[in-house]
Amino acid sequence: WEMILPKRLKRMYDVLNERTRYITVLIEAVDDPHNQAAVLRTAEAFGVQDIHIVTGKAPFSPNRLVTRHADQWLTLHRQPDIETAINDLKQQGYQVYASYLGEGTIPLSDIDVSKPTALLFGNEHSGVSDEALKLADGTFVIPMYGFVQSFNISVAAALALYDVTERARRQAGTRYYLSSNEKKALYQQWMWQTL
Amino acid sequence: WEMILPKRLKRMYDVLNERTRYITVLIEAVDDPHNQAAVLRTAEAFGVQDIHIVTGKAPFSPNRLVTRHADQWLTLHRQPDIETAINDLKQQGYQVYASYLGEGTIPLSDIDVSKPTALLFGNEHSGVSDEALKLADGTFVIPMYGFVQSFNISVAAALALYDVTERARRQAGTRYYLSSNEKKALYQQWMWQTL
Ligand SMILES: C[S@@+](CC[C@H](N)C(=O)[O-])C[C@H]1O[C@@H](n2cnc3c(N)ncnc32)[C@H](O)[C@@H]1O
Ligand SMILES: C[S@@+](CC[C@H](N)C(=O)[O-])C[C@H]1O[C@@H](n2cnc3c(N)ncnc32)[C@H](O)[C@@H]1O
Repeated sequence: WEMILPKRLKRMYDVLNERTRYITVLIEAVDDPHNQAAVLRTAEAFGVQDIHIVTGKAPFSPNRLVTRHADQWLTLHRQPDIETAINDLKQQGYQVYASYLGEGTIPLSDIDVSKPTALLFGNEHSGVSDEALKLADGTFVIPMYGFVQSFNISVAAALALYDVTERARRQAGTRYYLSSNEKKALYQQWMWQTL
Repeated sequence: WEMILPKRLKRMYDVLNERTRYITVLIEAVDDPHNQAAVLRTAEAFGVQDIHIVTGKAPFSPNRLVTRHADQWLTLHRQPDIETAINDLKQQGYQVYASYLGEGTIPLSDIDVSKPTALLFGNEHSGVSDEALKLADGTFVIPMYGFVQSFNISVAAALALYDVTERARRQAGTRYYLSSNEKKALYQQWMWQTL
């Protein structure tokens, strides 16, 4: 890295230094293109690099007016089904926390961020599947105080990422950030695709 | 209030006890019906009772699939223009904090919640107007770490309300909640409209 960089490279450099794989997102059957796009945009804004995707009834085709090109900076992982997705994440060392509004769920702020954590969000109507709930290491809920029964999924993902990345940034130290090699690889990929 | 209440009245009672006018929301020229609706739904979920609305180019017609009837439990205040809206709020004792991505803005978590606070959110493209920025008591930004330049307004409102209501609930004590008279009035209104 050179000391003086053109503005654009400087920006890449700054963003790379805030990037994380310590926190990741898995979406299951999020069908609305507006919601798909909003999750990508928010994750990118919080520096979360990887998004794992299991489609439901609708294809994955995030609304381009909403993403604002966030997808171009992210690493999207398509998974054939929820079992493969969760087992893959576990094998990579993640604990998987599923958002869940039912009984026995812990508040968002109680998720232990001393380990790499994947947050799982579910379908607009049916939520996270039973299969996913069985495979997950735990479930969490964002506390609600009104009549409305749930947040929109894009809002829920934003609130969860805000809380979890903020705490992990403080607690996980250097483990939160990418290694030099990871940064280099990502930098090359970004350079390549912006050519 | 009776000790044993039918389920539905019990729910109203619980929600009333979490309701706040200490934190309020002002939206200026938020034109997208999806975003209008999402703000209402999220505010209701956090127990925020009052929403102040200044329309822009588009009418205020929140998408009914997104609101999930949140509007039915809220008090919506239509204001003719932003000057009237902000001056009204100030006269009611609110400090007005405008979301703003430019220079000299403070991070969300630094907003002082020892006073009643109104949060102002702006148009999808142009943001909060210059006039509003001049009249506001201060500006705030939700820190961003990626390439994306801004959050979607409905995400920004959710993140700001999450942070501010959480801190105010802990710091403001009973001032955060409605008075008995306010609760009674709202209860009557809710009963009336659910008949
Ligand atoms: C509209 S909700 C689904 C509601 C569904 N009826 C249920 O009970 O799960 C869509 C998704 O948003 C997320 N979500 C909504 N509200 C949430 C909350 N309060 N806490 C955690 N996740 C939430 C979950 O991922 C959920 O799968
Ligand atoms: C898409 S943004 C508008 C972007 C516009 N170019 C600007 O600079 O304000 C729409 C609204 O979302 C809110 N917003 C978006 N990102 C925000 C952030 N990081 N902090 C605070 N508010 C934000 C603001 O209310 C803004 O007016």
